[in-house]
Amino acid sequence: GDAWTVVDGHHLEATYAFPDFETALAFTNDVGELAEAEWHHPDIHLSWGEVRIEMWSHDIDGLHRSDFAMAARMDRAYAAYADGE
Amino acid sequence: GDAWTVVDGHHLEATYAFPDFETALAFTNDVGELAEAEWHHPDIHLSWGEVRIEMWSHDIDGLHRSDFAMAARMDRAYAAYADGE
Repeated sequence: GDAWTVVDGHHLEATYAFPDFETALAFTNDVGELAEAEWHHPDIHLSWGEVRIEMWSHDIDGLHRSDFAMAARMDRAYAAYADGE
Repeated sequence: GDAWTVVDGHHLEATYAFPDFETALAFTNDVGELAEAEWHHPDIHLSWGEVRIEMWSHDIDGLHRSDFAMAARMDRAYAAYADGE
């Protein structure tokens, strides 16, 4: 998705916006479910109306195709919220 | 609780440890519930086995007694996990 940027050639980062804290927390849980299903756990920064994700593959200390696959899954999860607005 | 430190006289910070991602996510939801109940929303940094909290009162851009009250509530929520281990 458009939200993602590659930072220092090392990790992916995206910030998703939400209308309130509760919705941002719900999305955090969606990301958590994906992370457990894929056994690939990003760093999730939750604050009021915002979820910022940082993600990389710890075993290679960099980016793997699985990171981009997870990024696409998060974008799809986010689309469900955007459609509802 | 012992976990909290005052950073730059401006905000409170604590890092809570967990045995896995799922438990850290569960605690994140507990903190989210407290935040909604008190209408006081900290920044929550969730990663594998860890939840780091940063909290201050945005209206005064500093610390208020409500921050310390929330900190105590989070410590009590965390105790429920520690007791289970």
